Amino acid sequence: MSLSLNQWTTRRWSVAEAVDGCVRHGLEAVGLWREKVAEQGLAESVKLVRAAGLRVSSLCRGGFLTAGGLPGEEGRAAFAKALEDNRRAIDEAVELEAACLVMVVGGLPGVKPGEALPDGFSRDLAGARERVAEALAELAPYAGERGVKLALEPLHPIYCPDRAVLSTLGQALELSLPYPEEQVGVVVDTFHVWWDPRLAEDVARAGRRIASYQVCDYLHPLPADVLLGRGMMGDGVIDFRPITRAVQAAGYSGDVEVEIFNADIWAADPDEVVATMKARYEDVVLP
Amino acid sequence: MSLSLNQWTTRRWSVAEAVDGCVRHGLEAVGLWREKVAEQGLAESVKLVRAAGLRVSSLCRGGFLTAGGLPGEEGRAAFAKALEDNRRAIDEAVELEAACLVMVVGGLPGVKPGEALPDGFSRDLAGARERVAEALAELAPYAGERGVKLALEPLHPIYCPDRAVLSTLGQALELSLPYPEEQVGVVVDTFHVWWDPRLAEDVARAGRRIASYQVCDYLHPLPADVLLGRGMMGDGVIDFRPITRAVQAAGYSGDVEVEIFNADIWAADPDEVVATMKARYEDVVLP
Repeated sequence: MSLSLNQWTTRRWSVAEAVDGCVRHGLEAVGLWREKVAEQGLAESVKLVRAAGLRVSSLCRGGFLTAGGLPGEEGRAAFAKALEDNRRAIDEAVELEAACLVMVVGGLPGVKPGEALPDGFSRDLAGARERVAEALAELAPYAGERGVKLALEPLHPIYCPDRAVLSTLGQALELSLPYPEEQVGVVVDTFHVWWDPRLAEDVARAGRRIASYQVCDYLHPLPADVLLGRGMMGDGVIDFRPITRAVQAAGYSGDVEVEIFNADIWAADPDEVVATMKARYEDVVLP
Repeated sequence: MSLSLNQWTTRRWSVAEAVDGCVRHGLEAVGLWREKVAEQGLAESVKLVRAAGLRVSSLCRGGFLTAGGLPGEEGRAAFAKALEDNRRAIDEAVELEAACLVMVVGGLPGVKPGEALPDGFSRDLAGARERVAEALAELAPYAGERGVKLALEPLHPIYCPDRAVLSTLGQALELSLPYPEEQVGVVVDTFHVWWDPRLAEDVARAGRRIASYQVCDYLHPLPADVLLGRGMMGDGVIDFRPITRAVQAAGYSGDVEVEIFNADIWAADPDEVVATMKARYEDVVLP
């Protein structure tokens, strides 16, 4: 396993700056975000990572597949739009030779992150989960034909209303099973799964389905915006070593991405953030 | 199933006022809190509920059993103190003829709700879960001899650091299985479990182990203090009817408690809160 910088950790950095930063700090891989790639230009981003000799450990992110659960024409249009956007994401992952496309599947239809519940949103959680399975049936073959692995990311249950109705590793794994493991895998992100009493068992069960191992800490208390509750490893409550050991024992030998959403870290000097990240990776993440 | 007022929903009310409120609104049961019972006096509280002909649907709460995971003498003393406090809670449940004693098992050793992480707290989640099992082995026979049912409450994973390392219904159920079902049961609280992909399956598996069914909604977005993210049924994202149907199908025929922690509801006229609660129970909770 080898350390990778997910570029959202150093959010101020463009793709070019993140690539330079990785080289400067001796990292071999970078996790990219579609927004940043679009700003840099896809072709230019590809050129930069190749010239630097970096692996792209993941492209973030596809998903948001549940809006199709809204009734009638609105739902049908939203579903078609989501599929089209995900096909574009897969195409970008091909160009970048990304190890996987991370899929954040979306929350309850009509519910917006951080916004008050609108009229006409849906409380049908089981239905939203079915929409995800339907969308995956459309997207997995498209990804498979292009050699891209979709990585289903279970998010902490706190994000179930607005970001991901996929809430546990076990659930993500079951959703992946109908597809070949090179087409659909799962993400193990410590922030999202550290609390799960079935974690050890489901990591072992996931085995070669583990497409990405992401690490960051779970802060306590959480900040008012819970999206920013992700902290530098060692600053929160997670005991990383048993999780890392389990992921290794399951056969994962890919890159370990550090993905932190945190106002203080975004405000800090990115080079200092990367230096701290490297030190903490050695100190608290590696067994 | 019949509606019960958990007295924390009308937090300003004493035991005497909550009992009067239940009678005034035609409710047959009340869920009491130890702090409130202590303020009223145990003997007086018993007299009040008996005179009113109310059932005590639960006593809240025992638990906080994990501090024993701190090292050395501090841990041993904390464990002994927790056991002693829980025996007193069981004794109170006997006097009140409570249907169950709700157990909130505690978070990581040394982590305090809402406070910054202190020096010397423990990240050993697996160990904390073992401490809970050990404490239960001490307390279940004590409860059983006195005819009290301990009701293990899984809390939403957001509370795993500071309030409950018991995070899913399945985990609570497995912890209960070594004991007779009249000694140890589980709580199904919609706020805590609505997101769980295994919920239907685990409710069915729990069957007669379900000792309490508590309802309140999950607000979106959550307030800054996540403890207060509980809302009146219908004000949040939960689809109650499938959960109520599953709980009924599992054989639960006890009281349905409404337990809401919410600054606006605590500030409102308690009689209006109870009236709204009754209407919403009919409108969105009952199948």
